[in-house]
Amino acid sequence: MEKVDYILRADYLLTMEGDLSVINDGAVAVTGSNIADVGTFADISEKYTSEKISSGKNRVIFPGLINTHTHAAMVYFRGLADDMPLQEWLEKHIWPAEGKWMTGEFVDNAVGLAAVEMLKAGVTTYADQYFYQNIAAEKLVKIGMRGVLGAGVIDFPFTGYAQSVDDYFINAENLINAWKDSELISPCIAPHATYTCSPDNYKRANELSEKYNVPIHTHLAETQFEVAECQKRYGKTPVEHLESIGLLTERLFAAHCVWLTDNEIELLSKRSVGVSHCIESNLKLASGFAPVSKMLNAGVTVALGTDGAASNNDLSILGEMSTAAKVHKAVSMDPTVVDCRTSLLMATKNGAEIIGLGEKTGSIKPGKKADLVIADIDKPHLNPVYDIYSHITYCMRPSDIETVMVNGKILVDNRKLTTVDEAEILDIARQWQEKIKDQ
Amino acid sequence: MEKVDYILRADYLLTMEGDLSVINDGAVAVTGSNIADVGTFADISEKYTSEKISSGKNRVIFPGLINTHTHAAMVYFRGLADDMPLQEWLEKHIWPAEGKWMTGEFVDNAVGLAAVEMLKAGVTTYADQYFYQNIAAEKLVKIGMRGVLGAGVIDFPFTGYAQSVDDYFINAENLINAWKDSELISPCIAPHATYTCSPDNYKRANELSEKYNVPIHTHLAETQFEVAECQKRYGKTPVEHLESIGLLTERLFAAHCVWLTDNEIELLSKRSVGVSHCIESNLKLASGFAPVSKMLNAGVTVALGTDGAASNNDLSILGEMSTAAKVHKAVSMDPTVVDCRTSLLMATKNGAEIIGLGEKTGSIKPGKKADLVIADIDKPHLNPVYDIYSHITYCMRPSDIETVMVNGKILVDNRKLTTVDEAEILDIARQWQEKIKDQ
Repeated sequence: MEKVDYILRADYLLTMEGDLSVINDGAVAVTGSNIADVGTFADISEKYTSEKISSGKNRVIFPGLINTHTHAAMVYFRGLADDMPLQEWLEKHIWPAEGKWMTGEFVDNAVGLAAVEMLKAGVTTYADQYFYQNIAAEKLVKIGMRGVLGAGVIDFPFTGYAQSVDDYFINAENLINAWKDSELISPCIAPHATYTCSPDNYKRANELSEKYNVPIHTHLAETQFEVAECQKRYGKTPVEHLESIGLLTERLFAAHCVWLTDNEIELLSKRSVGVSHCIESNLKLASGFAPVSKMLNAGVTVALGTDGAASNNDLSILGEMSTAAKVHKAVSMDPTVVDCRTSLLMATKNGAEIIGLGEKTGSIKPGKKADLVIADIDKPHLNPVYDIYSHITYCMRPSDIETVMVNGKILVDNRKLTTVDEAEILDIARQWQEKIKDQ
Repeated sequence: MEKVDYILRADYLLTMEGDLSVINDGAVAVTGSNIADVGTFADISEKYTSEKISSGKNRVIFPGLINTHTHAAMVYFRGLADDMPLQEWLEKHIWPAEGKWMTGEFVDNAVGLAAVEMLKAGVTTYADQYFYQNIAAEKLVKIGMRGVLGAGVIDFPFTGYAQSVDDYFINAENLINAWKDSELISPCIAPHATYTCSPDNYKRANELSEKYNVPIHTHLAETQFEVAECQKRYGKTPVEHLESIGLLTERLFAAHCVWLTDNEIELLSKRSVGVSHCIESNLKLASGFAPVSKMLNAGVTVALGTDGAASNNDLSILGEMSTAAKVHKAVSMDPTVVDCRTSLLMATKNGAEIIGLGEKTGSIKPGKKADLVIADIDKPHLNPVYDIYSHITYCMRPSDIETVMVNGKILVDNRKLTTVDEAEILDIARQWQEKIKDQ
């Protein structure tokens, strides 16, 4: 009998490996930061002992959810401006607010709130695109959460963070050097979009990404405006433009991908570019409906992202799963597309793969890091149970997430954060609210 | 100083009357089943005293949510069959399951689960279309919830409930006579749809509705199949067909209304027919996108419904609000449509109006029944707060609903049911699950 740190048990265990079959009365053995073994509780308890064995009654275990596109610190602008056109929203509200408030302290405080919100909703990893990522990284390590933090690049300076465009690259390289060996933080570089980044800046980002073998995180083909602008400037659609400057590699993952030609879908598939589908943000900003069913059929790895809370307005991947699974059925006029298994795959395994963490997380498999959640299904809205996958996609809510483990450490225990003081984080958020609302 | 049963206080009070302005630090005085007064806490506490004054810190009060279209008892088929075409879903799964299991006992038990799920999600009233509504009515009265219960009518008998088509009308008239003076239950009649009810049966339903002045609840223009079938049988689209047989009156409220011509939208508006928009069901069954923005512009009163849990898969109106507010922006390519105020109006005041309860519920107004909810916004996903309407539509979840009052009685107190045993209801659901899953 081998001793392990935890044996986590559940009526339903979903590894998201192989044929996706459910392990009834399953268990996961966890040692240190790793998954040691997976199987039925009967098998696991024959091979392992632990002082910490969770009760599995009316519980389901699945891999930690992965938010593949967000701007965590924008959580402080949640609900600041809604129900208006994108350009008005950006130019009259979001950019002025960022210009006025965004500092290292702002990012530190806001990332704390975003991390707490995501952890309580079962999100164990997020991929971000913003500034001051060194500060976000420190915060995440303190909390114990996993992050793929992309240092933003745009064509113009940003007071306090980058006095010149060169500074974006210096900051990105510093971030990479500081965090490339971290267990929790994967640094990366994040050129913003084709309408805010010149071909030269995209190429510089690509060189840095190649030099250090880190991902590139960008926005791509989000709006019709962007496509028209790209056509005007470069005579090409956004994906073709990035292809022409050598950006389409397996290191790139692209958020949105709403307006794509069939040829562009083929290109994304051929070049193994991952796509972060942000359905709720695309809907709320009236950007359009991404061709998810077509992309999946073409072999593109599609994952899910919330985008920032200013355009969503929450950071829940369970919400994205449900919305994506429903909306694409109506868009395709085919109720079989984005079924409940596909939806959970997008939120877990696909998510890990596109952000460069496919070896580390995204499924429950011996040798991978122990990033997983236990949900409580002893709830009116989760009964009766005929197909647990259906319930996770169509009925489960963040409040059903009971336990969250990242890298072998329990960060949410019976819905309570273990490494941060939630009340303090809410108080700080309200202090910022009082300042920001009077801007 | 007048003594009242309750003074309910909140940082934000939304009455859903007038210009929808927020009452900061507001309070509602409740006596018996009625709302006695509404105002700032300062004003209310000068005029009234009560032994029960709730603390309002980080709380919001708004009218109880109204689910204007469901089949509550179908909650026992939640997740029984998903991700498949409508006809396969109905013919191979739902109809056989109903044929095998639907009895009075089934309805009693299942309605218990549905009511608990809805109450905990802030739904204080629902409009239903099913069989055995006398049993549902007894159950709701025991729980204390409000219901507009429609006795179903179809063209063919249903074993155990209706040996002949006449029985549907006999059962409906009995239901109306038994419950027409009830404070909580509004009986009504519910001819199913144009493809399952003959013109004669629609007309008989209309006569009964006129005789007793009760609403008619039907499905209308849900799918392209239905429109084609109606054209084939009657040479008219569904709304035109109902117009031609005299069904379009203000007593009618119609679920779905997905496939409408501009002329039909005008007809619905002119005849004051209310529409129950069931977006999540329409998406999940790939029925299509209802023209909600057009209907609202044409002056149609549009409210929200979940449809049955077998096609949603939950009974949360907060979910419908968020989905409707987001999806219609993308459908219209206009981010200003179905804004967060409109969304809450649809879920409250509009809901009450279309189901014939506009005088009784749907807003917080002296003289109306005290149907309201208190939500706790001291949560990571609900901070900071710049616009409380935005948070209710885009971020609030059923688990944020803390207190639910129906007809002046608290049914959910700090998230716990006060009139039913939730654990027992879950146990009974699991017993049914074991039977149904092996069918």
